[in-house]
Amino acid sequence: MELARSPLAPAETQPLPPIAGVRLATTNSGIRYKGRDDLLLMELSDGSTVAGVLTRSLASSAPVDWCRAALKGGKVRAVLVNAGNANAFTGRAGMRAVETSVRAAAKALKAGATEIFVASTGVIGQPLDAGKIVDKLPGLIASLGGDAWDRAAAAIMTTDTFPKTATRTARIGSVAVRLNGIAKGSGMIAPDMATMLAFVATDAALPARVLRSLLSKATEQSFNCTTVDGDTSTSDTLILCATGAAKGQPRIASAGDPRLAGFKRALDDLTRDLAIQVVRDGEGAEKFVEIAVSGAASDKAAKTIALAIANSPLVKTAIAGEDANWGRIVMAVGKAGEKADRDRLKIAIGGVTVATRGAVAPGYDETPVAAHMKGREIAIAVDVGVGRGRATVWTCDLTHGYIRINGDYRS
Amino acid sequence: MELARSPLAPAETQPLPPIAGVRLATTNSGIRYKGRDDLLLMELSDGSTVAGVLTRSLASSAPVDWCRAALKGGKVRAVLVNAGNANAFTGRAGMRAVETSVRAAAKALKAGATEIFVASTGVIGQPLDAGKIVDKLPGLIASLGGDAWDRAAAAIMTTDTFPKTATRTARIGSVAVRLNGIAKGSGMIAPDMATMLAFVATDAALPARVLRSLLSKATEQSFNCTTVDGDTSTSDTLILCATGAAKGQPRIASAGDPRLAGFKRALDDLTRDLAIQVVRDGEGAEKFVEIAVSGAASDKAAKTIALAIANSPLVKTAIAGEDANWGRIVMAVGKAGEKADRDRLKIAIGGVTVATRGAVAPGYDETPVAAHMKGREIAIAVDVGVGRGRATVWTCDLTHGYIRINGDYRS
Repeated sequence: MELARSPLAPAETQPLPPIAGVRLATTNSGIRYKGRDDLLLMELSDGSTVAGVLTRSLASSAPVDWCRAALKGGKVRAVLVNAGNANAFTGRAGMRAVETSVRAAAKALKAGATEIFVASTGVIGQPLDAGKIVDKLPGLIASLGGDAWDRAAAAIMTTDTFPKTATRTARIGSVAVRLNGIAKGSGMIAPDMATMLAFVATDAALPARVLRSLLSKATEQSFNCTTVDGDTSTSDTLILCATGAAKGQPRIASAGDPRLAGFKRALDDLTRDLAIQVVRDGEGAEKFVEIAVSGAASDKAAKTIALAIANSPLVKTAIAGEDANWGRIVMAVGKAGEKADRDRLKIAIGGVTVATRGAVAPGYDETPVAAHMKGREIAIAVDVGVGRGRATVWTCDLTHGYIRINGDYRS
Repeated sequence: MELARSPLAPAETQPLPPIAGVRLATTNSGIRYKGRDDLLLMELSDGSTVAGVLTRSLASSAPVDWCRAALKGGKVRAVLVNAGNANAFTGRAGMRAVETSVRAAAKALKAGATEIFVASTGVIGQPLDAGKIVDKLPGLIASLGGDAWDRAAAAIMTTDTFPKTATRTARIGSVAVRLNGIAKGSGMIAPDMATMLAFVATDAALPARVLRSLLSKATEQSFNCTTVDGDTSTSDTLILCATGAAKGQPRIASAGDPRLAGFKRALDDLTRDLAIQVVRDGEGAEKFVEIAVSGAASDKAAKTIALAIANSPLVKTAIAGEDANWGRIVMAVGKAGEKADRDRLKIAIGGVTVATRGAVAPGYDETPVAAHMKGREIAIAVDVGVGRGRATVWTCDLTHGYIRINGDYRS
């Protein structure tokens, strides 16, 4: 099925500059896709550190299991990614396929096995032929270069309709560092740890321990605040690599070091940018929706309520129908299971208060709200009237396009 | 929007016989619908007992709040139901509307206020004009009769495409008793206590305490095992009334009395029948799906896993597409958050094992499974390989029809 570029896609793809210490190459593996690259090798310079967050799914894929173990080492020399086959629910053969790829890459790059990270995305339950990956390694290594970021973002796509890229700069002490990120994902998006796949690299010099702390916080306010369909993937993987290649950096030993403030902001901002791009490519999406919940018992409760609204098929179809159906928002708040005061509930759509004190707002004029619902960008704000907890999540509408992509065919 | 009768509807509606001690009447209230009855009065003979289960939604409707308080009395003289306006999220005016209706009915029937139960279903957030209900009460009371069960089932419908009825008989000791039930519901179906609305009456003589115990168990294995869209209603109400009018019954003081065995079976069976009829009228449903989970850590864990599968939009759209996409079932098991052994997971569709020991079944032939997927009734069985917990839930597929009903209009 050929899919048109999402109407919510950014006007242009952010071009990614080189990152010192990072080289990339892509090719076609012959595993599933024809006429496009679907295999990515990212090589990191010796001494690079790594942190990652992985799906909490109990049916996690073989590559996820491998990464979970390898992350303990905190060192990285390569990330190897294939699109089209998730190598998930493939039994022991799945882990053997991972080990075959890893061993070949480690040997070719003169690295330790636990310094090789792998990620696979695509069909679940189909054996992955690792031989096809191994065969391509020499060619990939020969063509490694610092400029292939945009090709890398394209090579990891599956049902995505546009490549997702983001880049930021920051200072650590007086030294300028850079961060690049790429991501893929369109359906099966309700990350419980990270999105389907995202890779971020920086030339900052940071120990793995510090990276882990920064990445965990960044994920919580980005990928973990998004949902397309409430279906958590078996393959969610977010990996952050730091080459340390930017010259003259101070030695940072703790995530609490005040000199990291700018870097943190840049990382949070970059991960949020990528996460929102994934939502903007939600399967069948016609509208991008921001849901801000305030007045909850805690920030965690606010997020649960916001996600209950974001995942409600009745809310999502109402948005698709350009219907300011706030009764369905009330329903979703009610089913979230978190403390809320029905009689102090306040709902605003597009900045206009539609309901307040447990009933429709006095003199509510639907005209400006109806106009807002016709747009591409929908803003819903809900105050649940019990405390100071707040959270913002991002989602898209539920349309005939989603049914068409996921239901109108036999695989 | 005129909706065609669900293709999953039973071949014929079960005709309901009279129940001694129960009289009914229906009429058009003029509140929302034209050309059909939308107001139901069910009158119970003096001394009737009652139990009920109500939505756990924190945004529960005014009628739900009323019933929750009135149920403590355990006595019932009437149930008053309107369709078209849910009287939910209507602020203080909503409770005033309930009190106005209740007071008028109690006066006309010479009953106590807490013996009058009310239920409303329909649009959320619109003030309910109780005066229109009060005006109709004298006419309703004048036309009460024992034969109006089928008209009652039709009067409580909203987006339903067929009325839902069920009847059973049982013996308590040597005395034959009868149970009738009616229900409505089609969308916003993920009962957390009961379905949208269901009313069951019997001529058995049982104290309210015993009714409560029986109803709680019956609900757990019926309505609470169903989902259409995962969206829990603000108005879910299930009320069971017992008139005691069948002659010569033994005095039953405890739900554990062995003479209740047959009655329990009949009540469980009747509530399951009604619950399944609600799913068969799921908005846009083309296929009825039974999901049986075994091998879980507990029955509760099994139900959580079964509902995660039943609520997954990717599983539901695959079923709509007649695609035996068991990879999506693996995904849903993985996201459920309950213990499961990926490498012992076993999945059968239409009785054919498709996956076993964490991978596709050896020699799996898709032909019979593909044929099963083309049918109206889909059976999915999953063993998660960790214990002896089991549960069965019922749902339907997610189709363009659901989007059309909920998204293709402005309210």
